[in-house]
Amino acid sequence: MADPRFFPGSGAQRLSDVAAAAGASFTGDPGRVFTGVAPLQSAGPGDVSFLDNRRYAGLLATTQAGAVVLAPAFAAQVPAGAVALVTPQPYLGFARVARLLHPPPAPVPGVHATAVVAPDATIGAGTEIGPYAVIGAGARIGSNCIIHAHATIGPAVEIGEDCRLHAHCSVSHAILGRGVVLHPGVRIGQEGFGFAPTPEGGFETMPQLGRVLLGDYVEVGANSCIDRGSQGDTVIGPGTRLDNLVQIGHNVHTGRGCVIVGQAGISGSTTLEDYVTVAAQAGLTGHLRIGAQARIGAQAGVMNDVPAKTDVIGSPSMPVREFWRAMAKLKKLGTGREG
Amino acid sequence: MADPRFFPGSGAQRLSDVAAAAGASFTGDPGRVFTGVAPLQSAGPGDVSFLDNRRYAGLLATTQAGAVVLAPAFAAQVPAGAVALVTPQPYLGFARVARLLHPPPAPVPGVHATAVVAPDATIGAGTEIGPYAVIGAGARIGSNCIIHAHATIGPAVEIGEDCRLHAHCSVSHAILGRGVVLHPGVRIGQEGFGFAPTPEGGFETMPQLGRVLLGDYVEVGANSCIDRGSQGDTVIGPGTRLDNLVQIGHNVHTGRGCVIVGQAGISGSTTLEDYVTVAAQAGLTGHLRIGAQARIGAQAGVMNDVPAKTDVIGSPSMPVREFWRAMAKLKKLGTGREG
Amino acid sequence: MADPRFFPGSGAQRLSDVAAAAGASFTGDPGRVFTGVAPLQSAGPGDVSFLDNRRYAGLLATTQAGAVVLAPAFAAQVPAGAVALVTPQPYLGFARVARLLHPPPAPVPGVHATAVVAPDATIGAGTEIGPYAVIGAGARIGSNCIIHAHATIGPAVEIGEDCRLHAHCSVSHAILGRGVVLHPGVRIGQEGFGFAPTPEGGFETMPQLGRVLLGDYVEVGANSCIDRGSQGDTVIGPGTRLDNLVQIGHNVHTGRGCVIVGQAGISGSTTLEDYVTVAAQAGLTGHLRIGAQARIGAQAGVMNDVPAKTDVIGSPSMPVREFWRAMAKLKKLGTGREG
Repeated sequence: MADPRFFPGSGAQRLSDVAAAAGASFTGDPGRVFTGVAPLQSAGPGDVSFLDNRRYAGLLATTQAGAVVLAPAFAAQVPAGAVALVTPQPYLGFARVARLLHPPPAPVPGVHATAVVAPDATIGAGTEIGPYAVIGAGARIGSNCIIHAHATIGPAVEIGEDCRLHAHCSVSHAILGRGVVLHPGVRIGQEGFGFAPTPEGGFETMPQLGRVLLGDYVEVGANSCIDRGSQGDTVIGPGTRLDNLVQIGHNVHTGRGCVIVGQAGISGSTTLEDYVTVAAQAGLTGHLRIGAQARIGAQAGVMNDVPAKTDVIGSPSMPVREFWRAMAKLKKLGTGREG
Repeated sequence: MADPRFFPGSGAQRLSDVAAAAGASFTGDPGRVFTGVAPLQSAGPGDVSFLDNRRYAGLLATTQAGAVVLAPAFAAQVPAGAVALVTPQPYLGFARVARLLHPPPAPVPGVHATAVVAPDATIGAGTEIGPYAVIGAGARIGSNCIIHAHATIGPAVEIGEDCRLHAHCSVSHAILGRGVVLHPGVRIGQEGFGFAPTPEGGFETMPQLGRVLLGDYVEVGANSCIDRGSQGDTVIGPGTRLDNLVQIGHNVHTGRGCVIVGQAGISGSTTLEDYVTVAAQAGLTGHLRIGAQARIGAQAGVMNDVPAKTDVIGSPSMPVREFWRAMAKLKKLGTGREG
Repeated sequence: MADPRFFPGSGAQRLSDVAAAAGASFTGDPGRVFTGVAPLQSAGPGDVSFLDNRRYAGLLATTQAGAVVLAPAFAAQVPAGAVALVTPQPYLGFARVARLLHPPPAPVPGVHATAVVAPDATIGAGTEIGPYAVIGAGARIGSNCIIHAHATIGPAVEIGEDCRLHAHCSVSHAILGRGVVLHPGVRIGQEGFGFAPTPEGGFETMPQLGRVLLGDYVEVGANSCIDRGSQGDTVIGPGTRLDNLVQIGHNVHTGRGCVIVGQAGISGSTTLEDYVTVAAQAGLTGHLRIGAQARIGAQAGVMNDVPAKTDVIGSPSMPVREFWRAMAKLKKLGTGREG
């Protein structure tokens, strides 16, 4: 169902290859071919679909999909003629099938004639540099990257291999690992928000002398901002993903595999340990420590440390259970049914 | 009062033409001329002003404006020498007068020498392409558009006629209707926020294989982001207006004429029916349905469907009346006056 | 400790010059030299450090720093061999030492060959114009500015001396004072969010005929947006600082020295008097007046005027003391300990 103008596809793939990508077992002709992916409702015989949520299991009965990636418990419900691709992780399996059938664009190696690349910058083999990219003195870009149109990379910045910097990104004072993805308009490495009041009633900027370090496979959503450290560094741990319009203040540290959803903001010097989730529009004040696997709810306002594996929500935030009990009481105050 | 360096103006306009633009009736010399617009307090005899809010009716007595667009109820209060331009819709009428006297810049047809346009891209008659614009393979741009400096338009993107793409926009995987306006730094069509956890503790991107469809006359504010669909499309209905720094997740659908105010965010797969208003900094979780003409208050946190013509506010959101009653009780808790 | 690839430094500085920069008194050899700055924990003998918060006074005993900027009360705790740089304003003093040792890059005068500069634009002496900058007709840029790569400056815009416009900024319909700093991706001067409903169910844009005026030394954080006025101007007072992703609506006025933290938003026609602080993610509705030195808490939702020197928080906002009392009661409702 993907529009072929935008997502050309890799052509027909054999069932055996599809199943291998999905990490799934199957019964059927390994040579049967598939050309696309689609939801259960709209898939046709050439498409692979998936079921990840038992709420939608009813759709199996009527799907026209040629194959369905799903968990063992649902395999028997796949209609005759369709292949059950059985795996304990159907969402991951389907992601890999989708990537097999619609691989993301590979770099077209070379530097566009309009790019401005400093003479002493180094660019790895197989990397594509797009129109009007600007690459500063001494910058080092790894192999097999795509630097899209209008991206600007400041002096001495280092970028690992297999990175994707989309249009209009700016990166300065930063070191990026491998496989990092910056979506359009991302801002990395600008000055943090630090200044001292003067006796005359003005403010004077505190020089921001740290960097931004992005671990391997970090992804940053469109128009999000990560300020560089004031003296130490701002550090985003490996595999951490930021959604769009997220704000990360100077000296923030995140662990591995954190997820920070759209429009959330994390103030200066706060630390997230591994696998913390911060939901949309939540805000954390500065100098906090958020324990591993804690989950911060949408629009939460966090002003205190949060222990590991703890869920908080509300502004100011409180443990999730307390919050919902308080909200139920508050609602009764609103409806006048206070009994 | 408009600074002529920024808003040159169309020169003197006859009262008859001004009244026609306003859709207003008047008494007076149709040949009297006007050259500008200004608020009641600062307007002079050559200016057209307006009254839209009865709170400001007192200003009529002393205004120096040459003409005032207003509702019939106030026509008698216009001072001698000033023309009453009488219409049931004074705000709309005034907008049209302002546009008559200060028309927005028209395209200067042509492609700037520095623009990078793919050989097979098509550009309509009368369209202006600014410096350093980048237009991808197979893109189709309608007639009478202005593509401002540094805008990037990805392969196969379609843009209708009379569109305005301001500086530094990026558009990919998208189809835009006619009269669409994207303000500076808008991000359209980048990957949505979707990924599957791996057994090794990483995340793997779910390929985002949908598009963004912007209906006719959609306007998107500066630095706002609209992600493309994951399998289906993200759809913004005709005439819908987004303010600055708004986040729209993948697979969101809005109806016709919705208004989404600054820094609001709508999570993936949520649907707004026609004429929904979402006030500033509100957030909606995913997979919701918001009924036609519902109004979501500022900073509301919406986690449930909202029926049509219903006003909600609060985080978590509740009906407006309940919210204010609960807040009054809460305030009493705070002041200790709980009686 | 600053990475010399990003922060080259000015070389060794004499203690007498360091102390003069800090506005500090000292005892010791005025010819002793220092080459960098660092936190107390990591500084070495060639580094200057500082103490601004009594919570960290314990670090003085073990620091290896060669000199410490601090208040008189702590001078006696500096270890033997280290110099106490004594000043009543250690944070400000340290900022000035850091700037002495790591001065920000000076402009490299000249216009990059790829910049597109209108023939009648004027550019002051000593100003640097970066690659792919676009400068419109009649624009006037002061002396000693840096206009970084990809910045776009619209027709007739005026920019004072000593300004820094970072990568990917866009500025139109605006007049900037001296010493203004715009961080990457800032949007200045685009249309405000104003439109009139039509009888046919559409919206028609109200022409936005005002400007943006930024006072001397205003700084605007990455990807923040300031819309131009609708008829009057949007005005940001001298020395006011905005963090990243802030939204300023049309006709907003701020006084001198306001501080607006990340992701906060101020709706149209609201006025902040001098030295107002708006914390992160707070939102103010339109047409309000916020008195001098008022402080708006993080995530506050302000719908009413706030008197001078008043602290408010909460959504809807209330005086800080009431808020915390109400929250304590609410928390009891949540825990069931209502006694």
